[in-house]
Formats: sequence, structure tokens, C-alpha cells
Amino acid sequence: MKAVIAEIITIGDEILYGQIVDTNSAWMGTELTKIGIRVKQITSISDSADHIVKALDDARTRADIILITGGLGPTKDDLTKHVLADYFHTTLKLHEPSLDDIAEIFKKRGIAVTELNRQQAFLPEACTAVRNVLGTAPGMWFEQEGKVFVSMPGVPFEMKRMMTDIVLPQLKTYFKPPEIIHKVVQTVGIPESILADRLEAWETNLPEHLKLAYLPNLGGVRLRLTGTGSDATKLEQELQAEVEKLPHIIPNNIFAFGEVKLEEAIGQLLKERGLTIATAESCTGGYLAHKITSISGSSAYYQGSVIAYHNEVKTRELNVKPETLQQHGAVSEATVREMAENVRKKFGTDIGVATSGIAGPGGGTAEKPVGTIWIAYADKDRTETRLLNYNKDRLLNIEYTATAVLNLVRQSLTAAVEE
Amino acid sequence: MKAVIAEIITIGDEILYGQIVDTNSAWMGTELTKIGIRVKQITSISDSADHIVKALDDARTRADIILITGGLGPTKDDLTKHVLADYFHTTLKLHEPSLDDIAEIFKKRGIAVTELNRQQAFLPEACTAVRNVLGTAPGMWFEQEGKVFVSMPGVPFEMKRMMTDIVLPQLKTYFKPPEIIHKVVQTVGIPESILADRLEAWETNLPEHLKLAYLPNLGGVRLRLTGTGSDATKLEQELQAEVEKLPHIIPNNIFAFGEVKLEEAIGQLLKERGLTIATAESCTGGYLAHKITSISGSSAYYQGSVIAYHNEVKTRELNVKPETLQQHGAVSEATVREMAENVRKKFGTDIGVATSGIAGPGGGTAEKPVGTIWIAYADKDRTETRLLNYNKDRLLNIEYTATAVLNLVRQSLTAAVEE
Repeated sequence: MKAVIAEIITIGDEILYGQIVDTNSAWMGTELTKIGIRVKQITSISDSADHIVKALDDARTRADIILITGGLGPTKDDLTKHVLADYFHTTLKLHEPSLDDIAEIFKKRGIAVTELNRQQAFLPEACTAVRNVLGTAPGMWFEQEGKVFVSMPGVPFEMKRMMTDIVLPQLKTYFKPPEIIHKVVQTVGIPESILADRLEAWETNLPEHLKLAYLPNLGGVRLRLTGTGSDATKLEQELQAEVEKLPHIIPNNIFAFGEVKLEEAIGQLLKERGLTIATAESCTGGYLAHKITSISGSSAYYQGSVIAYHNEVKTRELNVKPETLQQHGAVSEATVREMAENVRKKFGTDIGVATSGIAGPGGGTAEKPVGTIWIAYADKDRTETRLLNYNKDRLLNIEYTATAVLNLVRQSLTAAVEE
Repeated sequence: MKAVIAEIITIGDEILYGQIVDTNSAWMGTELTKIGIRVKQITSISDSADHIVKALDDARTRADIILITGGLGPTKDDLTKHVLADYFHTTLKLHEPSLDDIAEIFKKRGIAVTELNRQQAFLPEACTAVRNVLGTAPGMWFEQEGKVFVSMPGVPFEMKRMMTDIVLPQLKTYFKPPEIIHKVVQTVGIPESILADRLEAWETNLPEHLKLAYLPNLGGVRLRLTGTGSDATKLEQELQAEVEKLPHIIPNNIFAFGEVKLEEAIGQLLKERGLTIATAESCTGGYLAHKITSISGSSAYYQGSVIAYHNEVKTRELNVKPETLQQHGAVSEATVREMAENVRKKFGTDIGVATSGIAGPGGGTAEKPVGTIWIAYADKDRTETRLLNYNKDRLLNIEYTATAVLNLVRQSLTAAVEE
């Protein structure tokens, strides 16, 4: 099957000067890959007519699809539309439905349509308008010699909505790329290199049309298995069969199938079991609570937290014994154990978790260097503790610690069921 | 003065397939802009010889400097080095100092240098090696027909270190771009459009060689004033004189000069005045505490927090009166006021702050829709409250609320001095 090739062109100085990071292209690359279209080049150029024409000429020599973002604002600086009209030997003409959409947006804001915004409804006659329900710049779809050119605004949420609703489905219909199906398996608590080692035999035995990608992010590795073929049902079955082998190979590290965050998976576990949780944080300073509460609906299982940044708060609010702090220090198994057990009692929850460590860059000693972090999990039956040793910067130490605590909760809950 | 032009080429499929976002190029764009070099194009291409050669040929028609990242890993897939050797009609030769660096890295890890990594010390004879002290792939600096080509690894921290230590200084020496000086002014609590309106007259009166950029980020707008010229001392004076006018035009919104975060500026204020602070969070769920404790050294002024996600925690841990919750609800001025005042007393701090609101997407009502958020600041003399109305998604509502609280602290501390 011949691959369908796309290129992305972004127009505007903000990306070139580093004022914004080009997240649009990454998103587009991901979505195009998902439907079996291969991105061959991404080009960021300045907002000048010559440069735009050169980029279009180059891209069409390599690609079937050229997706353009940016340069469609209402000001006179933005000349993409005019360049495209010339490029396709056509002229601008008022597109009434686009003007209606623009009028609607201004009506909602309670102000009259400005002349500059009215100009945005003028589109090259040779294009099909791509409706923008979230902004004033309509997109443009051109076809020429079997190739498709689509121009969209650079505003991320406008572009994404247009791609999802219109451009991606139409590209699928037009080019009929091969069926592509992805299955995502989320792992935590195992480094990429060890994971790759464990999965080597399984990966080697995968049929040619199933490909594995390791996608590490902070504190975990996403596995993405991608199948390419002509029969979607058969592909789905093949992928499912392969994915189901994984829990036998790495029984302790899979926390979810699909696009689910660790804090979401744990929220789900807690909800299913009707359990509640409270946190006591020292070195993570609220970030663990933030991760948990970033999930909508977390108030069903999350009660609250004591952030005990000062030792005095540890004794007064979390009843950590002064002797414990004196004998073992704040960063110790004994302290973190008391923190987890006591916050559980204090908040009347099923589970209590705690962190205490040296996030850095200051505060380390020879005995307890920066990155020495204790975490604890407590429920009515038992308390589990772990010593972590990270050697990252402050924010990464905090990030990894929060993930380790969530993973400890997951392991404890899963083990409790297995017993 | 003729502008010095650079182009950036990134090699590798991860960016094209959207597996990673190209933050390297944004960073490079920023750093090049700072030293007066203009980025004309950023091109992301696949790891194939033809494609690399085509990109190099294209780039040299437009640019004086071609910076290449990626494709220098130890595996056989990475062919950048071989392509560059061919491109510059030269062959690979063992570069002893690079082999020493690689050996040093492996020695630290306590393992023997692998053959694959040894191969990384072979460099094209025509290049000057660019030392990589953080990884095993040295960079390469080529000069041809007055143009400079630099190839670096794609690992962000390795590339950044090489750019900062070697490449940027050498480019400055080689091309002598005009003097460029930047001054950054940090604002908060004023939307970009209103800010632009207030600064219009000032901006219009700026001399031609001083340019203003608005760089909005979550919750604030950075102003960057850039001066270009040949006399650094004179430029510095001109910029300083212009920047000093700003506090008279926007007296309430500047929190810092230079690259300082809001939470850092507030930490500094608290330290200078010897004040301590505690937080009581409902809707921000720990994120406010996280922002404060993300600053190294925050334990000097930050005592801790009660995250009261449940109403019961608000009454039990923060002594919010049950009548207050009944009469006004958890999301109310009365509740947030008691939270701030009581957390201050509870932790024995000079200042207490609190948040209570509906972060969404669930939990909104007709009377109190999603995004209705109350915040409070309390010190020994007074309590200030603010009602916020955001219409963002959950995480943005949390982010903006934390910024609003920090800004309220800043305003209260600054006002106290002015009185």
C-alpha cells in the first residue's frame, strides 16, 4: 500500500523567534499518524510572500497533503490568504456563510463587526471554505493535480476543532489511507530500558504490520502498539490479542489501557472500592494533592491534605512525635510513617499517604543528599514505606515523587485484592 | 547593518509523528534572537540521507548559519554524521579528545565503553569538534564559503549546554551581529489588550531601534524591550530610561524586572520583610502551595497548608463555622474569609490566604457557575477578598486562581508599604 504523505507549514515569526513553542505541529503529526498519513516534513517560515510560495513549491514535490497554519489574522500583516489566491490563480470573493459566522461571534460579544473582521470573510474563489465555529478566520481547502492544500488559523483550539470536525475526516475520504489502529498500554515504575528488555521477545515476535513505540513521559512509559492493514476488524482482534499478553509479561507495571493518567486510574480504583484518601505532604509541597485534584470528580474520594512544610506543623497538625523528629529527622521512615498514619486518622479516611524528603537544590547533607525522599502509604491494616533516590532538579524530584506515591497507592490497592 | 540569518534543521521521526514537541527549536530561536541573529526557517525532517542533503542545500541559499539537531545517537539508524561527511567531501576519523570524553562518561557509570559508543568519537575530518560534556555524541562545526554549519545532538540539555558554552559565543565572534540588549518587565493582573492600550503612547514614542514585544503567559504578560545598535553602553542607558517610565504608566501591575516568576518575586518580598505565610485551599487543591514551594528556599517563609477539599475539613481543620457554610455555601466570601483568617491563626503566620470556588467541569449552578471563585488574604490588620470569574477548563481555572492569589498577596504587601 502506498503511503499517503503530508507536510505541515507554519507561518509567522513567533515560532521562529522562540516566542511560542510549536505545539500545533506535534498535535497534527499525532492525529495524521493515527489515520495512517505520514508526515514527511514540518517547516516553520516567516510571514513573507516569497517564503510562503517557496515553501509551497517545495512541499508539493514531496507530499500529497500540505497543511498550513497561521497568518490568517485580521491585520494587514497577515498575507497568507492573498498569497494563496495568487498561488492558485484566483481572486478573493465574499463568502456569505463565513460572514454569517463572523457576525454571530460578534453578536455574542455584543459588538458590531469591524471592517477588518469583515475582510476575513473574503476567500479565494478556487477554495472550499473550512468552517471555523470558534473564530473569525475561516479555513481554505484547495485541490490541484491530486494534491490537497489546507490553510487554517494558528490559534490552537480553532485549528484543532477544524481538523477534528472537517479536515481529518475529509482527508480520510479523499486519500483512503490504510486502516491504522492504535492500542495504548500505560506503565509506571519501570524504566524504559528494563521495560524494553522484558518485552524484547514479545516485540520480536510481533507480525510485520504491528509496530511498538515506547513513549516515555514523566514517571511512566506509554506503550503504543500500532497496526496497519486493510481489514479493521481483523486488525483490532490481532492488536487486542497481543495487548492481552502484556499483563503476563509485566504483571506489576500496567496501570491502564488507553489514554488514562495515573491519577485518573487511581481515582477510578478508589471510586470503585468506595475508598477515601488524604495526603500529608512535606517535600512535594502540595503537588501530590494537585495531581489528585486535577481530576474532575476527585472530591468523591479526596478529603484533603496537610502540607507540613515546617517541622512545627508536622508535630502540631500531624501529631508526629517530637522524639521521632529529634531521633530520625524529618526526612526518615519513622516520620513519614507517622505522617501517613496520622493524616488518615485526622481526616477519617481509609487511606493516608505522605512524603518527606529533600527536593533540592539546597538542604542536602552527606548522609541525606538532595533527592533522598521517603514516602508512605497507610490503611487500616498496614503501613508501607519506600525510600526514593532521585538525582534531578527540584521540580523533577517533586514530579517523580508524586508519581511514586500514586504508584504505591495503586500497588497497595491491587495487592490487597490479590491477597 | 546587514542581518545575520540562521536556519534550524531538526532530524528524526519523533517530531514529525508528534511523539515529542520541538522545544529545542523554540529555545534556539530565543537564544539566537537575543544575540541579534534572525531565524528565517525551522525545518523538521526525517532521518534519511536524501532529505538531509536537500534540507542543507535549501537552507544555505537563505542562511549564513545552519544549526542541525538530532540524528547523532549511537545506533546505526542515525546517519547524520555520515551524510555530513559526504556533504563536505571528507571522511570520518577518530577524534581522540572525544573518545576521552566518552570514556570518562562510561567510567562514571562504572561500565566499559561499548563499540557503538566508541564509534561516536569518529568525526568528519573537515569539522571542528564541539565538545559535549554531558553526553556521548560530540557536535561538529563546519565552515564553507563563509557559512557555518553546526550539528548537535537532539537531547535538550546536551544541546543547550553546547550552545551556551561554545556555539553561541563562537557565532558571535564569527559573524559579529549587531549589539542586542533586552530588558524584561513582568506584569500581572492586566489583560494584554488593556496593557497595549495603556502603553500605546509610550510605545509609539520609542526610537526606531527599540522594539517592544508582548509575551503573554498563564496569568501575566511579559514585556520585552529590545534595543539594537553598535554601542552597548548607550543602548543599555536608553533601554533603562524607557523601562523606568513604565512604573508611572502602569503603577499597579509590574511585579519584577528581569526573568523572575511571580511566586519568586513574592518569596523575595516576604523574605525581605521577614514575614511568613500559610495557605488554605479548596478549589486550587494544592496547586497554590505547589507554586509557592516550587521556589527553592521557600521554607524560609512558607509554613504549610490545609487543603480542605471536603466541607467537613473546612469546619474541623479550619474552624469555618457550620452556619457560614449553611448560609453562604462553601463558595462564598464569608467562607473564604474565615479560611484565610483561621489558617493564619492555626499556623501562627503573618499572612493567611485561601481559595474556594468551582473549578469545573462539574459542580456549577445557575447562581454559581463553573469558574466562580473566591479568594482571600488576611494579615493581622485586615482581610481582603476578591471574586474571580473564569470561564476556562479545570486546570486553567486552577492556574489563574493561584496567580490571582499571589497577585493579591503582592498588592497587599505593596499597599501596606505605600500607606
